[in-house]
Amino acid sequence: MPELAAEVAFEVPFFDVDVMDVAWHGHYVKYFELARCALLRKIDYDYPKMRDSGYAWPVVKCYLKFVRSARYGQQVVARAILRDYKNQLRLDYEIRDAASGERLTTGYTVQLAVAMPTGELQFVSPNCLIERVEKACEN
Amino acid sequence: MPELAAEVAFEVPFFDVDVMDVAWHGHYVKYFELARCALLRKIDYDYPKMRDSGYAWPVVKCYLKFVRSARYGQQVVARAILRDYKNQLRLDYEIRDAASGERLTTGYTVQLAVAMPTGELQFVSPNCLIERVEKACEN
Amino acid sequence: MPELAAEVAFEVPFFDVDVMDVAWHGHYVKYFELARCALLRKIDYDYPKMRDSGYAWPVVKCYLKFVRSARYGQQVVARAILRDYKNQLRLDYEIRDAASGERLTTGYTVQLAVAMPTGELQFVSPNCLIERVEKACEN
Amino acid sequence: MPELAAEVAFEVPFFDVDVMDVAWHGHYVKYFELARCALLRKIDYDYPKMRDSGYAWPVVKCYLKFVRSARYGQQVVARAILRDYKNQLRLDYEIRDAASGERLTTGYTVQLAVAMPTGELQFVSPNCLIERVEKACEN
Repeated sequence: MPELAAEVAFEVPFFDVDVMDVAWHGHYVKYFELARCALLRKIDYDYPKMRDSGYAWPVVKCYLKFVRSARYGQQVVARAILRDYKNQLRLDYEIRDAASGERLTTGYTVQLAVAMPTGELQFVSPNCLIERVEKACEN
Repeated sequence: MPELAAEVAFEVPFFDVDVMDVAWHGHYVKYFELARCALLRKIDYDYPKMRDSGYAWPVVKCYLKFVRSARYGQQVVARAILRDYKNQLRLDYEIRDAASGERLTTGYTVQLAVAMPTGELQFVSPNCLIERVEKACEN
Repeated sequence: MPELAAEVAFEVPFFDVDVMDVAWHGHYVKYFELARCALLRKIDYDYPKMRDSGYAWPVVKCYLKFVRSARYGQQVVARAILRDYKNQLRLDYEIRDAASGERLTTGYTVQLAVAMPTGELQFVSPNCLIERVEKACEN
Repeated sequence: MPELAAEVAFEVPFFDVDVMDVAWHGHYVKYFELARCALLRKIDYDYPKMRDSGYAWPVVKCYLKFVRSARYGQQVVARAILRDYKNQLRLDYEIRDAASGERLTTGYTVQLAVAMPTGELQFVSPNCLIERVEKACEN
């Protein structure tokens, strides 16, 4: 499987920083999502396209491992890498300091396709995902 | 106009506290909303009922005045008071320390009715609001 | 190890609900924290006590498994259960529908002690945690 | 008074979008803060410098006027303009659609200086602000 990845650069905003003077750990789920949306756009399957395709893709698992904390104003890069798409949509994530490249946080999410409006869970990914991934990997 | 008001009690969560060791000022918009939803339930016009009535009620103005800050774990009470409903939905708010009653934050929001799905702004409040308010005031 | 657990009941606020009409998955990290703080209070070791004890307890791992989604206004219960405290602080979580008891989300967090202000990681939990847990379990 | 302003461009993230398919109104306080921090950096008085100067600058008033809503993925620009600094720090804000320039939201914040650690409110802005503004305006 060829690597499909996307990155987003941003800085840690003041409103994400907690009393310990670092980004509160829960905000990294947002940072993962920023990178995930960038990757999904690369395959032309971001949220509005998902909705139009007749499937919702709820996150069913999310794991975060915190290595180093991030301070207010720190420049960081969030990277999402596609790891599986045939039976589930699994992405791995890395948040790094933009300057040093030091890893701050890693993790993954798993999403499953649900046919709308019946709400039926799909145990094999629908073609609307598979074709998009394969087309993007050809390029 | 008889007073129509509602209160919600809660404590300041850790994830709302910023580096100054107090609730970040932007979170008070959420505290206002908690009280607003409680008031709207009193007149049986909370969000799902709004949607079913064919109107959206976007917030068009919001004002907040911060008097004292709130710390992690502090018990607070958010109160919403109906001030106008005939041409707009205007609510005033007070956030107080639960123990001392000291005022922490005050403010207001203004919402206007928008007919869905046309998106047409209503310069007079629709009957679905007026009747509910008047019924609640009779009780 | 006797079970040490704590629960918090709350309802899903409007501002946590996403475009799919359910609580956005990232907000569950906050729900976990509400339950965690309740448990830490039971052993008299909530955030201000941690700070006074000379240790920070950053979350180093967080896992969430989403089983069912939660809608606006749904009454839910978040429960935290202590699973380990000797070498790390590990808590498991369950978010349930308050009425039916149906499980919505499960997960865990791992926290490690860091001595302040040196920032030195502790591979064995400091006594200030161990004694509090053991005292709470005796009761 | 010469105009001192700063802008930040960003796109509306998925996690800020509510059930009405637009950015939830409370998130605009964050967008204001992004622009405010950019302006404060221009005068070398962003949060870490504030802290080092011995003053906190709590927001004491915040007003938001919502003109048009913003959708997921929309490119927007948040602009902060300095309006007063002698007795208070008052900034006006404009959030615009990046492509069309259409105004989405306007508002202002007022901050007052509080000497730390005494907590004494300053009715005249301290020199550490005044000198920085005047130096930036000369350039």
